[in-house]
Amino acid sequence: MMSRTPDARARDTQTKQIQENITSVEKHFGDLCQLFAAYVRKTARLRDKADLLVKEINVYADTETPNLKCGLKNFADQLAKVQDYRQAEVERLEVKVIEPLKAYGNIVKTKREDLKQTQSARNREAKQMQQLERMRQRNPSDRQIISQAESELQRATMDATRTTRQLEETIDDFEKQKIRDIKKVLGEFVMVEMAFHAKALEIYTTAYQHIQNVDEEGDLEVFRNSLHPPDYQSRLEIVRANSKLSLNRTGTSMSKSGTMQSRTSSRQRKRDDEEDEEEDDEDEDDLEEVTDDEH
Amino acid sequence: MMSRTPDARARDTQTKQIQENITSVEKHFGDLCQLFAAYVRKTARLRDKADLLVKEINVYADTETPNLKCGLKNFADQLAKVQDYRQAEVERLEVKVIEPLKAYGNIVKTKREDLKQTQSARNREAKQMQQLERMRQRNPSDRQIISQAESELQRATMDATRTTRQLEETIDDFEKQKIRDIKKVLGEFVMVEMAFHAKALEIYTTAYQHIQNVDEEGDLEVFRNSLHPPDYQSRLEIVRANSKLSLNRTGTSMSKSGTMQSRTSSRQRKRDDEEDEEEDDEDEDDLEEVTDDEH
Repeated sequence: MMSRTPDARARDTQTKQIQENITSVEKHFGDLCQLFAAYVRKTARLRDKADLLVKEINVYADTETPNLKCGLKNFADQLAKVQDYRQAEVERLEVKVIEPLKAYGNIVKTKREDLKQTQSARNREAKQMQQLERMRQRNPSDRQIISQAESELQRATMDATRTTRQLEETIDDFEKQKIRDIKKVLGEFVMVEMAFHAKALEIYTTAYQHIQNVDEEGDLEVFRNSLHPPDYQSRLEIVRANSKLSLNRTGTSMSKSGTMQSRTSSRQRKRDDEEDEEEDDEDEDDLEEVTDDEH
Repeated sequence: MMSRTPDARARDTQTKQIQENITSVEKHFGDLCQLFAAYVRKTARLRDKADLLVKEINVYADTETPNLKCGLKNFADQLAKVQDYRQAEVERLEVKVIEPLKAYGNIVKTKREDLKQTQSARNREAKQMQQLERMRQRNPSDRQIISQAESELQRATMDATRTTRQLEETIDDFEKQKIRDIKKVLGEFVMVEMAFHAKALEIYTTAYQHIQNVDEEGDLEVFRNSLHPPDYQSRLEIVRANSKLSLNRTGTSMSKSGTMQSRTSSRQRKRDDEEDEEEDDEDEDDLEEVTDDEH
C-alpha cells in the first residue's frame, strides 16, 4: 500500500466519500420511507375510526325523531365521503411517496455494485504497480519482462481510469436523480395532502349545513306526541266505532303528514299554554294525539 | 296490579318509554363519545408520526447539499406547523366534542333519578288505591276510615300527577337539550375539522413552494466539488509555498463564495466537455477545485 500514488490515495478517499454518500441515502431514504409508511398507516387507522363513527351515527340516527334522523344520516354520509377521500389519500401516498422511496433500496444496490467494480479495477491497477516495482528490483536489466509489466500496468490504469470516470458519471446521475426524486416525492406528498384537505373542507361545509338545518321544534313535537301512551289506543277504538266522521278525518290527516304535523304543532303549543288545565282535559288531548301517532 | 286504572297503565307505558329513551341516549352518546375519543386519539397518533417525519427530514437535511438542505428544513418547518394545528385540533375536539358528550353520563343519571321519583310517587298512589279498595271491601260502612283513605289517595294522586308533570317537563327539556347538544357537538366537530383542513391547505402551499424552489443545479455543483479528493490538499500546500500570488487569489475567491460558485460552475461544465483529455490535465483541474473546496 505504501507504493500507492497520491492519485490512488485521492481516489480511495473519493471512493470512501461515495460509499458514505450511498450509505447515507440508503439510510435516510429508508427511514423516510418507513416514517411515511407509518404516517400512511395511522391515516388509515384514522379512517377506520371515522368509519366506525359513521356507522354509529347511522345506528343512533335510527333511534331518533325524523328531522334529527335525517340530519344525522346526511351528516354520516358526508363524514363517510371524507373517509373515501382519506382512503384515496392513503392509496395515493402509497403509490406516489412510499413506492418511489422504497425503490431506492434497489437503486442504492446497483450504485454499490458500480462502486465495487471501480474498486476492483483500482485494486488490479495497484497490484500491477507493485508487480512492476518488484520486476524492476529483481530484474532491473530484463527489459522484456519490465516492458510487459509496464504495458499490463498501463492497461490496468486505463481500466481503473475508465471505471472511475464511469463511477463519477453514475454517481453524478445518482445525485441528480436523488435531488429530483426527493423534490418530487415531497411535492407529491404535499399535493396528495392538499387534495384531501381541499375535499374535506368542501364536504364538511355540506355536512355542517345538514346538521344546522335540523328542525328542532318539529322533532320536539314528534317526541312529545310519541310520549303519549298508546294504551289509549283501546279507548280510541271505541271512539272510532262511535264516530265514523272522526275516523275519516283521522284518515285524511294521516295521508297528509305535512298538514298533520303543522296541526300537531299548533295543538302542542296550545297544550303547553294550558298546562294548568284539569287532568281530564289533558286526557282528551292525549286521545287526539294518539290518533296521529298511529301514523 | 289488576286494580290499576287505564291511566296508570298508560303511565307505566310512558315511563317505560322514557326509560328506554334515557337508556338509548346513554348508550348512543356514550358510544359516540368513545368513538370520537378514538378518532381524536388516532389523530394524535398521526401527529406523532408526522412529528417523527419532521425530525427525520431535519436529520436528513443536515447530510445534504446547501439548497436541498435549506428546502428540506423549510419543508420540515411547515410540516411541523401542520402538526401544531393538528395538536390544536386534538385539544379542541376534546373540549368541544368529547367533554360535552361525556357530560351526558351525569345528565342521564339525574334524568334517571327524576324518573325514579315519579315512579315511587305513582307506586304510592297505586298502593293507596289498593288500600282504599281493601277498606271499602272490609269496612264498607265505616265512612270515616274510607274517607281518610280517600283523602290519602287524593294526596297520592296529586303527588303522582305533579311528579308526572315535572317528569314530562324535565324529559321535554332533556329532549330539547339533547337535540341542541348533538347539533352543537357535531357542528363543533365540523368547525374544528374545517379550521384544521383550511390551515393545512394554507401551510402546505408554502411547503410546496419551499420544495419546488430547491435549485438542483447549484447543489449538483457543490456535490461535484465535494467529490474531488482533499488528499490533494498536501500538494496544494507546496503550490502555496511556491506562489504567494496564488495563495492571495485563493483567499479572495474564498471570501466571495458567490463568485467562487459561478467560477466553479463554469469550470465544472468545461470539465464535463473535456472528458477525453489526459489524466494530467484532470489532475490540474482537481488541484484547482480543491483550492475552492478548502472554503
